[in-house]
Amino acid sequence: MLIVMKADATSREIDNVANAIRGSGLRAHVLPGAQRTAIGITGNDGVINAAAFENLPGVAEAIRVTKPDKLITLDIRQEKTVVRIGDATIGSDELAIIAGPCAVESRAQAFAVAEAVKRSGARFFRGGAFKPRTSPYAFQGLGEEGLRILAEVREAYGLKIVTEALDESGVDLIERYGDMIQIGARSMQNFSLLRRAGRSPLPVLLKRGLAATLEEWLLAAEYIMAEGNYQIVLCERGVRTFAQHTRNTLDFAAIPAVRSVSHLPIVIDPSHGTGKNYMVASMARAGVAAGADGLLIETHDQPERALCDSTQALTLGQYEQVVREVRAIHETLLSLTTVTLG
Amino acid sequence: MLIVMKADATSREIDNVANAIRGSGLRAHVLPGAQRTAIGITGNDGVINAAAFENLPGVAEAIRVTKPDKLITLDIRQEKTVVRIGDATIGSDELAIIAGPCAVESRAQAFAVAEAVKRSGARFFRGGAFKPRTSPYAFQGLGEEGLRILAEVREAYGLKIVTEALDESGVDLIERYGDMIQIGARSMQNFSLLRRAGRSPLPVLLKRGLAATLEEWLLAAEYIMAEGNYQIVLCERGVRTFAQHTRNTLDFAAIPAVRSVSHLPIVIDPSHGTGKNYMVASMARAGVAAGADGLLIETHDQPERALCDSTQALTLGQYEQVVREVRAIHETLLSLTTVTLG
Amino acid sequence: MLIVMKADATSREIDNVANAIRGSGLRAHVLPGAQRTAIGITGNDGVINAAAFENLPGVAEAIRVTKPDKLITLDIRQEKTVVRIGDATIGSDELAIIAGPCAVESRAQAFAVAEAVKRSGARFFRGGAFKPRTSPYAFQGLGEEGLRILAEVREAYGLKIVTEALDESGVDLIERYGDMIQIGARSMQNFSLLRRAGRSPLPVLLKRGLAATLEEWLLAAEYIMAEGNYQIVLCERGVRTFAQHTRNTLDFAAIPAVRSVSHLPIVIDPSHGTGKNYMVASMARAGVAAGADGLLIETHDQPERALCDSTQALTLGQYEQVVREVRAIHETLLSLTTVTLG
Amino acid sequence: MLIVMKADATSREIDNVANAIRGSGLRAHVLPGAQRTAIGITGNDGVINAAAFENLPGVAEAIRVTKPDKLITLDIRQEKTVVRIGDATIGSDELAIIAGPCAVESRAQAFAVAEAVKRSGARFFRGGAFKPRTSPYAFQGLGEEGLRILAEVREAYGLKIVTEALDESGVDLIERYGDMIQIGARSMQNFSLLRRAGRSPLPVLLKRGLAATLEEWLLAAEYIMAEGNYQIVLCERGVRTFAQHTRNTLDFAAIPAVRSVSHLPIVIDPSHGTGKNYMVASMARAGVAAGADGLLIETHDQPERALCDSTQALTLGQYEQVVREVRAIHETLLSLTTVTLG
Repeated sequence: MLIVMKADATSREIDNVANAIRGSGLRAHVLPGAQRTAIGITGNDGVINAAAFENLPGVAEAIRVTKPDKLITLDIRQEKTVVRIGDATIGSDELAIIAGPCAVESRAQAFAVAEAVKRSGARFFRGGAFKPRTSPYAFQGLGEEGLRILAEVREAYGLKIVTEALDESGVDLIERYGDMIQIGARSMQNFSLLRRAGRSPLPVLLKRGLAATLEEWLLAAEYIMAEGNYQIVLCERGVRTFAQHTRNTLDFAAIPAVRSVSHLPIVIDPSHGTGKNYMVASMARAGVAAGADGLLIETHDQPERALCDSTQALTLGQYEQVVREVRAIHETLLSLTTVTLG
Repeated sequence: MLIVMKADATSREIDNVANAIRGSGLRAHVLPGAQRTAIGITGNDGVINAAAFENLPGVAEAIRVTKPDKLITLDIRQEKTVVRIGDATIGSDELAIIAGPCAVESRAQAFAVAEAVKRSGARFFRGGAFKPRTSPYAFQGLGEEGLRILAEVREAYGLKIVTEALDESGVDLIERYGDMIQIGARSMQNFSLLRRAGRSPLPVLLKRGLAATLEEWLLAAEYIMAEGNYQIVLCERGVRTFAQHTRNTLDFAAIPAVRSVSHLPIVIDPSHGTGKNYMVASMARAGVAAGADGLLIETHDQPERALCDSTQALTLGQYEQVVREVRAIHETLLSLTTVTLG
Repeated sequence: MLIVMKADATSREIDNVANAIRGSGLRAHVLPGAQRTAIGITGNDGVINAAAFENLPGVAEAIRVTKPDKLITLDIRQEKTVVRIGDATIGSDELAIIAGPCAVESRAQAFAVAEAVKRSGARFFRGGAFKPRTSPYAFQGLGEEGLRILAEVREAYGLKIVTEALDESGVDLIERYGDMIQIGARSMQNFSLLRRAGRSPLPVLLKRGLAATLEEWLLAAEYIMAEGNYQIVLCERGVRTFAQHTRNTLDFAAIPAVRSVSHLPIVIDPSHGTGKNYMVASMARAGVAAGADGLLIETHDQPERALCDSTQALTLGQYEQVVREVRAIHETLLSLTTVTLG
Repeated sequence: MLIVMKADATSREIDNVANAIRGSGLRAHVLPGAQRTAIGITGNDGVINAAAFENLPGVAEAIRVTKPDKLITLDIRQEKTVVRIGDATIGSDELAIIAGPCAVESRAQAFAVAEAVKRSGARFFRGGAFKPRTSPYAFQGLGEEGLRILAEVREAYGLKIVTEALDESGVDLIERYGDMIQIGARSMQNFSLLRRAGRSPLPVLLKRGLAATLEEWLLAAEYIMAEGNYQIVLCERGVRTFAQHTRNTLDFAAIPAVRSVSHLPIVIDPSHGTGKNYMVASMARAGVAAGADGLLIETHDQPERALCDSTQALTLGQYEQVVREVRAIHETLLSLTTVTLG
């Protein structure tokens, strides 16, 4: 059930409704919007008695929700969610650039890349400390040592740290060292991990699974939101198809599709989405032109020596060029009154 | 085998080599480039004797080609092919807009749409006279009557007519009424049709099959070129995947992938590529930003009454807005020195 | 619309209804069943007036059909269609084995294979005279010369000849030399070819397209039936997926799925369905166990020298062994009262 | 690296080699075979010095392994692995039937189903206590209470309990209550979970991911083996494709494909593999005919009331019939000298 508050409802009235919901043994999700606040109710086994809430002061209406997703929908929030880490945002008019190496390999490597990322004007640094690798014998990341290096990068450059958690203990560590929890494609339906991230104070970057439908992806976000964490960014990183000229097939239509049903921001990963260095610029431009809120780009100071995904990482020079190109397109979109961003 | 002529080879020398090839019972494909002319040789059963040609006047070198594709490759021609119909081009710096209704339904409908297409500055009008329909009982197009209406549209608006041939007799008719032969996704491996189109004086728009690999698609173009028709435009129109929020999944990575191996221009069809009206603008922008040479867009004066594909056709107003948006992005790309177009 | 005749309707009454339908400018499709005859009506633009037919003598009822498919459905015929060529059948209790080389390469090769096919007890010999090849430069079959060799095989061994038509002129030739027209996966939506096959007196083997849904496949059969040819066998030959350990992924669930909606028989092609010699026996057994009406198996006297698909062809010895295995399973199924065959 | 022991090597010699490996800081995996024992070495960062081991008493040869998978391969073990739980086996000549409801819903339901499973001669009872559900608001299983009921089923019927772990704490619980750990399709690349299962004394049923390649699946098994647990059964449960007449597309070719590279047994899940009750019998027969070592079948005393996957569960009567059918086919295969089972 969804409780829509009146436009002029006071915060006291909102708190009052939320408390009444909690008092009934249910969970209240307060989502403020530009026009009015809505309160999602979860935790019910059967039908909720609307009468208990719809007559409380400040309530405009109570709406029965029969869809399997509730909190990620435009029903509860019409404006796009803006995810904020300090003064950096994802989902606003600003194009969010999240860049860095596939894996943190050393302090020197991380700093060399961070230097270029900072210089490009990007606000987010992404690097893996725990790497999900297909083979048990492949490089699995530096672990906590990698996280410590990332924390140093934050200190030195003021970049926000985005890094992947593979399990619940990984979330514990990121809460200590990082700024945003990435949940990777292979973990998109690791429900224990989703619930743990839902109880974190950090925002979550939720990658789409290799063969996830739009609904499954959004319901994975719903798992996180149902636990009380509403700061979620979706990341399209390509799906698995018969096509073999790329590692994955980027599904750009996910951008308008997500927009049409959800308030969550969405970014594109042209690096994993293609697996090929020479395609990244083209696909990054496409993502921004399609209306993505940002990009996740892999770059490395020495791509040919990268310990993972070396075929897709951009050189620092290529990376800076791509950022210039996508910013030019983003500026163009902002000047078009017919395109809605932010 | 591929005969590369010297940069200063005369046209007489080129003719001479071509004639020597033909005199050996082989086929000569003369493809002039900006720097030099190359001559592809096909029609051989086994290995060609290079010595017969490499010492002729004007020949720089003879290159053995072992790949299954020969004429579509960058080996034979480094510059992008520019397809020309009168003064309209596909593959040049100009963004090619090919627009019109799924099917020609009546003279009034065709003229209403053509009026808007002309006004938008587009040079190509596309409408189906023969429609490949999944069901034998669905509307199959107006047939030759539809082609006659298209010829009238050309007369009235000066637009170049692009329309689909379903079989060899369809090519005969388009040669009488139209300007460019579309070969649809379902016909991409109709080899009899490809060969017939290869013997036509008209250029060909070759759509990618629903589950065609890049190689299969390019080899379908090779079928056409092997018959002597080198004016081919590739059209990415979405492939079939598990994803269900769209009719097809547009594979934008086909743009850089084609560029990396072939000189043929490539356009994007955001209408069939999504099947959903509300996604077309976003995907059209993505296509142009990714570097496509043009777009194929369905528009209808009364989409809700369209006899086919009504869910994807833009209203004329939406269409004009999309054209403005993609032109703005195309201008931006032209201003970026790091992006190579045309 | 579907006219169901009474169980005791006379053939004169049936003819009378069919003539009345034709007299209204419509097409009548008379499909006799074990219990009663049904007459499908096609060729209408809009709604058919039931009153014109439902009161004719012998008519039990007139049923409005709103589905896009009409003639392939269980609505019009509850019993499985048995396709007959002389005394050989597909769709009966007998397991149909259709075997032969990918392409007819020579008289000697065809006879060597036919000898083994005959000895195995199979009734159908399949070999290609016109080969649909991805590359224009690959072996395209012997053409009419190949058909003449097939006609000799028929003469010598009494085997029924199944061979592929790539276009309408190919159907003309098969009508002269062969017994059954194969329509390949790439041609499944070549609607001109489907209609031509629908006007042939020969039965049709309709392969599923590489990315065809069940509905598209059945509607392709409907195209053939709508022209008056009701002798159709469906052939599942694998679909295109992300999986790379096989050339295609055999969709065995198509067998119960087709059974649940259509009266047409269905066979499995484990050779094209896997592309790998060592998988053919296992997949052939699976097909028969799943309830397929037959198998299409590629075998060659010298697989390593085959001019096409050499990796999937069985040696003659392997082929004979597979036939023994599948016959044993077929016998087992016939003994199980819970499995319905034929 | 792989150390192959001589056929007549003593157990003391084998222990001696294993100890030498461990003494070098590496991991020794001793896999006895019918002819000889092989010892896999993992845990190395770079190249292993063969000389250190190849001259030890009893060693036949040391083989360098460059493939990403080591322990799952036929290189290390030529005979199929037989997984044993008490006297019940998977991978032997006996056809393994693993049956039960999607989820344990109550003691009454579990016992009603177990009664039928026991009566059918099956040795394994499968039921979910922790259910991975797409929506956070769907029934998530009874949790530990469900495991307690499963333990009672084991007590009452002597059936071996197979049940899914969603995370590491789930493995702890199954070790207390169950006999075999199922790792579901969504968890196939949950590497923390794989490693935990690799340290368990219980055998593991590893389902293939929805879009997993054969190599990814086998490397997931390698993760488990690398930790020292060699009792693994692979389970093909259908992959995600464009096809929509089934929930998933069962990839039966995985059976011969796995056989050709790995010693691990493989079973088929026709219930999740189709999602449709009416297809289960046909697909179960296909799986056994293709050479699967067993089946995983969902059955419920009241499928229409099942709390999950109600469309695919068989009634108890249907289930018993399917078991009779597949046993008949399995008997037939055993009688065929050309088919290798067990």
